[in-house]
Amino acid sequence: MAPSDPLRRSMANVSIGQYLIQRLRDYGIEQMFGIPGDYVLSFYSELEKSPIEVIGCTREDCAGFAADAYARLRGMGALCVTYCVGGLSVCNSIAGAYAEKSPVVVISGSPGLKERGGGTLLHHMVRDFRTQYDVFEKFTIAGTELSDPVTAFSEIDRVLDACDRYKRPVYIELPRDMVHVVPPVTHGYRGHVREPDSGATAEAVAESVARIAQAEKPVIIAGIEIHRFGLQDELLALADKSQIAIATTMLGKSVVSERHPRFIGLYEGALGNQDLTRFVEESDLVLLLGAFLSDINLGIYTAQLDPTRCIYATSEEIRISHHHYHNVLLREYLQSLVASELKPTGRTIPTSLVCGAGEVGQDHEPADEPLTTSWMVKRLNRLIDADTIVIADVGDSLFAATELTIHDRGEFLAPAYYTSMGFSIPAALGAATACSDHRVVVLVGDGAFQMTGQELSTLVRYGHNPIVILLDNHGYGTERFLHAGQWRYNEIQPWNYTQLLSVYGRGESHLVTTEREFQAALEHAWRTTDTPHLIQAKLLEGDASQTLKNLAERMGKNVG
Amino acid sequence: MAPSDPLRRSMANVSIGQYLIQRLRDYGIEQMFGIPGDYVLSFYSELEKSPIEVIGCTREDCAGFAADAYARLRGMGALCVTYCVGGLSVCNSIAGAYAEKSPVVVISGSPGLKERGGGTLLHHMVRDFRTQYDVFEKFTIAGTELSDPVTAFSEIDRVLDACDRYKRPVYIELPRDMVHVVPPVTHGYRGHVREPDSGATAEAVAESVARIAQAEKPVIIAGIEIHRFGLQDELLALADKSQIAIATTMLGKSVVSERHPRFIGLYEGALGNQDLTRFVEESDLVLLLGAFLSDINLGIYTAQLDPTRCIYATSEEIRISHHHYHNVLLREYLQSLVASELKPTGRTIPTSLVCGAGEVGQDHEPADEPLTTSWMVKRLNRLIDADTIVIADVGDSLFAATELTIHDRGEFLAPAYYTSMGFSIPAALGAATACSDHRVVVLVGDGAFQMTGQELSTLVRYGHNPIVILLDNHGYGTERFLHAGQWRYNEIQPWNYTQLLSVYGRGESHLVTTEREFQAALEHAWRTTDTPHLIQAKLLEGDASQTLKNLAERMGKNVG
Repeated sequence: MAPSDPLRRSMANVSIGQYLIQRLRDYGIEQMFGIPGDYVLSFYSELEKSPIEVIGCTREDCAGFAADAYARLRGMGALCVTYCVGGLSVCNSIAGAYAEKSPVVVISGSPGLKERGGGTLLHHMVRDFRTQYDVFEKFTIAGTELSDPVTAFSEIDRVLDACDRYKRPVYIELPRDMVHVVPPVTHGYRGHVREPDSGATAEAVAESVARIAQAEKPVIIAGIEIHRFGLQDELLALADKSQIAIATTMLGKSVVSERHPRFIGLYEGALGNQDLTRFVEESDLVLLLGAFLSDINLGIYTAQLDPTRCIYATSEEIRISHHHYHNVLLREYLQSLVASELKPTGRTIPTSLVCGAGEVGQDHEPADEPLTTSWMVKRLNRLIDADTIVIADVGDSLFAATELTIHDRGEFLAPAYYTSMGFSIPAALGAATACSDHRVVVLVGDGAFQMTGQELSTLVRYGHNPIVILLDNHGYGTERFLHAGQWRYNEIQPWNYTQLLSVYGRGESHLVTTEREFQAALEHAWRTTDTPHLIQAKLLEGDASQTLKNLAERMGKNVG
Repeated sequence: MAPSDPLRRSMANVSIGQYLIQRLRDYGIEQMFGIPGDYVLSFYSELEKSPIEVIGCTREDCAGFAADAYARLRGMGALCVTYCVGGLSVCNSIAGAYAEKSPVVVISGSPGLKERGGGTLLHHMVRDFRTQYDVFEKFTIAGTELSDPVTAFSEIDRVLDACDRYKRPVYIELPRDMVHVVPPVTHGYRGHVREPDSGATAEAVAESVARIAQAEKPVIIAGIEIHRFGLQDELLALADKSQIAIATTMLGKSVVSERHPRFIGLYEGALGNQDLTRFVEESDLVLLLGAFLSDINLGIYTAQLDPTRCIYATSEEIRISHHHYHNVLLREYLQSLVASELKPTGRTIPTSLVCGAGEVGQDHEPADEPLTTSWMVKRLNRLIDADTIVIADVGDSLFAATELTIHDRGEFLAPAYYTSMGFSIPAALGAATACSDHRVVVLVGDGAFQMTGQELSTLVRYGHNPIVILLDNHGYGTERFLHAGQWRYNEIQPWNYTQLLSVYGRGESHLVTTEREFQAALEHAWRTTDTPHLIQAKLLEGDASQTLKNLAERMGKNVG
């Protein structure tokens, strides 16, 4: 997202805090998430006077997940917390955003520069004034401490530019006595231009075109970066021109409409649909575009992808067979491919794969039968449309959700690579904030819900009306499959979840144990759009989706 | 706490996982806290087969707070989590334990060594396999990755020894394929002996004795290390022999019985009781024993302690006036002081300070009046006894709780220096687990409760019966005082807290708005010891304890 002409702006009498707010707005940030604390109160007060709305969360890590979801949908997200007790509480959320390439700006207050020294330990301090900065260096792509008025504006520019360019989190530490400081400098915003290597780009494109021309059975695997960098049009143009089929990864689910005629489904190695796995692994050329080679994404070590048959193009590198091209922009690479001479491949897509048909499979009409996650997902699948955002938490929520069909402009969010439990409810807050005209549907297990479920109260507070489908199997169900045996540690306290919306102040709750009850609750919730819904679905004992069963079989041997 | 003769133990056929469990038991650990995850399932299964009980928490950071409280009461605590999504979720809790010197052992599973390599990204990974280790280095005193069978046992010994010696958290990373490995070595446990500097010890003691002899108006300020290192007897012997009055700090509250005739109260600089502040600051010799010079502990920059009149003795150094003695053990130093020739001081303690009388002040019988925190604390003060553990969360819960009188063997826990909101409910779980024969009473604000209140469900689950007094002022009350103005960001969603115990499955709830109602609820809760109680106390609008008002006056100018 390009800044809205920050070049023409007057910097006279603009404080560091005000400049930071202006620049965040340039990147499209209208809301941010967080919890105030004394080291950041002065900046909070600046925010409250500004057009940016601060969504107050119950916990800092929830603010991190919400900002992550907001960033996935809007191109950049931000959160604002106090020093250490706030900042160190978002480590896990930001590590997840780093791992899954979500551009989140972390703003942390810190002790004023004038307070430091004198040997007094300040509250919220751990070891020294660098501790938090050093920690965030481990999972951000750029960071700065705004301790020098002369460089503060250009540091803000540099760090936000890195966030936008690399789609990774960044860290800004703001000493509380610097918020109101007006730097004694004239400052003009300069976009930071990265010069790609034109020779490398041309050669990578030429080699790719030649390999595509030679291939008889090519396939595309499109990953999450297609979404992050806004390259959906380039991807579809490439597929249309070359007539190559597109699979996606679990993390990349929804980067293309799953109704597209060349979409064939999620490639998950040995875990997923075996027709699709065969189609991909029999290919003589696999174009991995913006995809990461991660174990869950590609089916826990089972993907049979011979590097000599692969073109692996990401924002970080282009690798063809065993050689690498550095400093090639993914966008430029894809645009050049589209612009080049490409003959349509003669390879036909088996009817079992067209539009990802293999994913959904048959369902049946609701009966007085116990509930399975797969069946519920198939029923949900009949309702979701382009105005729905589906968010899946970790566990069978995620594995079963691979069977959902995501439409044009529809969105699917999940922590599919980093797999941090408790992502979904705070992410629903971020999604509802980012796209208030969409319906947000959450699939969450009971274990994940107990971690961050209180953020539902913030959705209630700000007038959002999500549908939360809580898959209740009294514990950590995935782990029961990963490590056989009756282990007590997989059990959790059973809650009366249906009373929670009453605690939080608004919404309808539904306790369902049969297919008929679920169907009725889901249809009612779908119709009743002016209130939040929580559907506690008690699952058939021992229920697991086919993907989870496959995963357990593959993964179990590593668990020990 | 000394290991129970690990020297005589046979190490034949003991795996790395089993050895770790044995050594934790040597340090008195009977329960630990955590959440399972696939990278740690093999160790969890070893734990479940062992005498150590794993208390399953709702969230990892709660497990961290619970282990911290357990450590404060039992001398060492432990938690066990999975890689990154688990480990990086406890950063804040462990940073707090580091800052406040609580000996917590963090055990994290990690990917098996055989799984690494091959260029595949494993799920839960952030950047590389060192990321989590590097992060924990910032707030632990020692760490190890158990990747080498030959050194694994001695590494476990070294790290646990450091935890015990320095009373700080340590970090143990356990690749999942190392849990069952039986090292091919004979291993004998050797205690790690630190040789103190006898010359420095003798000189420090001699100089201290001389200064005490010269002092006409000496005073002791006893801090948290007296508790952590078990030096209460030495402290009391010193006070009895020298007849010097003892004040404590906020973090050190309860290191001595507050009924002791030489106890004069909490020294908080300009924040606290001004008679006591004057008594301390008029002293010609201040013995700071095991106390940290932190801003909240010593009243936000207001402590007027001239270094030339101070002896500052901690486990890290002894400083007299402007010179330092290194490598002197706090225990040996105190014992030598007690053993030396000390004449009783002639200084009398004003009656207004005897037994901390100045702390509590007057209360009045309950009326149909709105509730103030100070009044409730005074009523609570009439009930607590030596079998009560009081835990205060951050906010006016903490400031008002300074007025509580802690008895012999009674305990007061609070994150009084690091001040991380949300500590109290998970800490209550740790305290109830560590001291199941004590009654646990929690003072917690509504903002803090929304962060980690779900851990009450774990107290319910494991049969504990705490009394939770929830101070409801619809938001972040302390911040309203620190930064004047009607800021929306200090407001939070009002919950119907009294329905929560019903969600969690057991307990009685009480909504009170007047003194009479609170008194009735508190007395009922005190009598009804077989169930948890939650008292939601709606506070008088704008209520604040005197300490908070003093704090706001001092601190507000730094907030900006």
